Amino acid sequence: MSIDTTTADKLQEQIQYKIDNKTKPRGALGQLESLAAQLCSIQNTLTPVLAAPTIVVFAADHGLAREAISAYPREVSAQMTYNILAGGAGINVFAGQHNIEVLLVDAGIDWPEARPEGMIDHWMGPGTNNCLEGDALSARELEECLAAGASVVDHNVNPLCTVLGFGELGIGNTSSASLLMNALTDIPLPQCVGPGTGLVGAGLAKKLAILGSVRAGHPHPKDALETLQMFGGFEIAQMVGAMLRAFATGRILLIDGFVASAALLAANALNPGIIEHAIFCHQSGEPGHARLLDFLGAQPLIDLGMRLGEGSGCAVAYPLLVSAVAFLQNMASFEEAGVSTGEPEAQADEPEAQAEEPEPQTRKTVT
Amino acid sequence: MSIDTTTADKLQEQIQYKIDNKTKPRGALGQLESLAAQLCSIQNTLTPVLAAPTIVVFAADHGLAREAISAYPREVSAQMTYNILAGGAGINVFAGQHNIEVLLVDAGIDWPEARPEGMIDHWMGPGTNNCLEGDALSARELEECLAAGASVVDHNVNPLCTVLGFGELGIGNTSSASLLMNALTDIPLPQCVGPGTGLVGAGLAKKLAILGSVRAGHPHPKDALETLQMFGGFEIAQMVGAMLRAFATGRILLIDGFVASAALLAANALNPGIIEHAIFCHQSGEPGHARLLDFLGAQPLIDLGMRLGEGSGCAVAYPLLVSAVAFLQNMASFEEAGVSTGEPEAQADEPEAQAEEPEPQTRKTVT
Repeated sequence: MSIDTTTADKLQEQIQYKIDNKTKPRGALGQLESLAAQLCSIQNTLTPVLAAPTIVVFAADHGLAREAISAYPREVSAQMTYNILAGGAGINVFAGQHNIEVLLVDAGIDWPEARPEGMIDHWMGPGTNNCLEGDALSARELEECLAAGASVVDHNVNPLCTVLGFGELGIGNTSSASLLMNALTDIPLPQCVGPGTGLVGAGLAKKLAILGSVRAGHPHPKDALETLQMFGGFEIAQMVGAMLRAFATGRILLIDGFVASAALLAANALNPGIIEHAIFCHQSGEPGHARLLDFLGAQPLIDLGMRLGEGSGCAVAYPLLVSAVAFLQNMASFEEAGVSTGEPEAQADEPEAQAEEPEPQTRKTVT
Repeated sequence: MSIDTTTADKLQEQIQYKIDNKTKPRGALGQLESLAAQLCSIQNTLTPVLAAPTIVVFAADHGLAREAISAYPREVSAQMTYNILAGGAGINVFAGQHNIEVLLVDAGIDWPEARPEGMIDHWMGPGTNNCLEGDALSARELEECLAAGASVVDHNVNPLCTVLGFGELGIGNTSSASLLMNALTDIPLPQCVGPGTGLVGAGLAKKLAILGSVRAGHPHPKDALETLQMFGGFEIAQMVGAMLRAFATGRILLIDGFVASAALLAANALNPGIIEHAIFCHQSGEPGHARLLDFLGAQPLIDLGMRLGEGSGCAVAYPLLVSAVAFLQNMASFEEAGVSTGEPEAQADEPEAQAEEPEPQTRKTVT
């Protein structure tokens, strides 16, 4: 239900009034309250709806992965894609738990054989160019990726979907994310680089050195589009396109971990309003992610040290969105329940509330 | 299924092997992995079961609440109890979301009229004695409370329940929790005291001063039982009894916020093994809670700044337990999925895994 309000301020006031009038001390639901308020704002309503929740996983390979910047061999991108298609990956388990639909997009996997059935085909080639040797994407490839991402939202996502999550899969893509973050935030590169799937010691030092060389070869991207082109990731660029389209169509955006947050960073540079629609689902174990969230002024919902990708953090955090909507819709107000508010102004205005039993509502309690 | 193992070490090894063999980088599910391992250990199995999840909410009034140590008047305890019975409280909403049964125990509410229907009756009187003037509970009351809590587990909780949450309700009970924490941990009182339902400024300073006086009157409790007797809370003492019984019957214990953690602290002093069965569901906005969790070496699942009580944090965090069990049971192993492990030792032992599509399992993905 859209409400009749002429100004955003008026809506904010109504939202806060509704939240503050629930039978709890003011602010006692913490971040669930700010989450509820954000969901209301996104949908311009006091009764937000989470419908047909969907997570899109964009999968692609990276030319830079030939430089041994990952703990896993490049072939694992295809293997993990098969695993998702077979229903055995983390995202299958967690999305299944919450009845979230998963869409899997082939943005450019380096297939050892024919592409398997069951993916959305936006294949750009067998991985990006090696950005140590040039731009990861051509200008034309970038344009196609942005359009492909938008097309997924327009043609593959359930039109009833109001809440859309973004995940990814691609050996080497924390390197792309680190480079994007460094170029778009000016946070020093070492603070943007981490172990990814599990590099340690010399492997991690080598990753940092290689990413330093990549940056030295691309010192001055002129804007977010050129940054995406240089450091790429077909899956990241398609995710940016999908995020922009999801925003344009009024969706709630669920942002997974480090790579998806880097995509959102780029999307926000292209359309700064988008961040108002973004829910940062979890803080990744990847160390650059905490710094990126700080930069974005974002507060993640959970912080369990997960670093799996695949949109898994969106799925695991999703029930918190349901909780936020549920308390907004189903908790009694002080008036309904006949409970004293404890607010000094209220106590001054009216005699102490009487302890009367309210009308019975749906009874969830049992003895 | 219990597994045939002669030593706990052997089980730990099997649990870790099962977790590490899931198709993800080692450790990539972060705290969900340690949670899964804990659930296995509690049930002495590789296939833990969450059955008939239940939250028991113990409600009572406090003599000390006559000293204006709360932002809310004492009558609110009864009002909030009515609200839970009517299905309008936070715990109803969040427990309903996850099909968790809620049991509400009258441990000693100061009723303005007859006790309403629908509660478990372990009424000890209209609130505890004012601990500024003596012990909150007599030795006999404490004994009865511990037995009452055990009785709830034995006679009211579904015998099939394997996972039991603990919540509370009672104006003034963060004061009891602060006193218990201070006495049982030796953490200085000011670090144990916070705003509770919302005291600020002079109100908070007054609460701290009053709690200092209470402590001065009870300087040297000789053990956890005497501490409970001095600073009490009928609901806290009954919760301790219920926690001990839940542990004795092999249940997983879900610990809500500050007050429930203080009860667990006392229970752990009485039976130190109990903490191995405890899942600390959330870190409360009440500042002493973070310090208490630190003292207990506990890592909470979520940290959303909630401070509602009622067991609400148990309910909101519950889906994370389901996620932990689900990945353990339903994620493919590396062998099942034909995915390279990326572990150097594995790669040394066997040729690089082939990228073969595994047998289709349940297909949760859709395109």
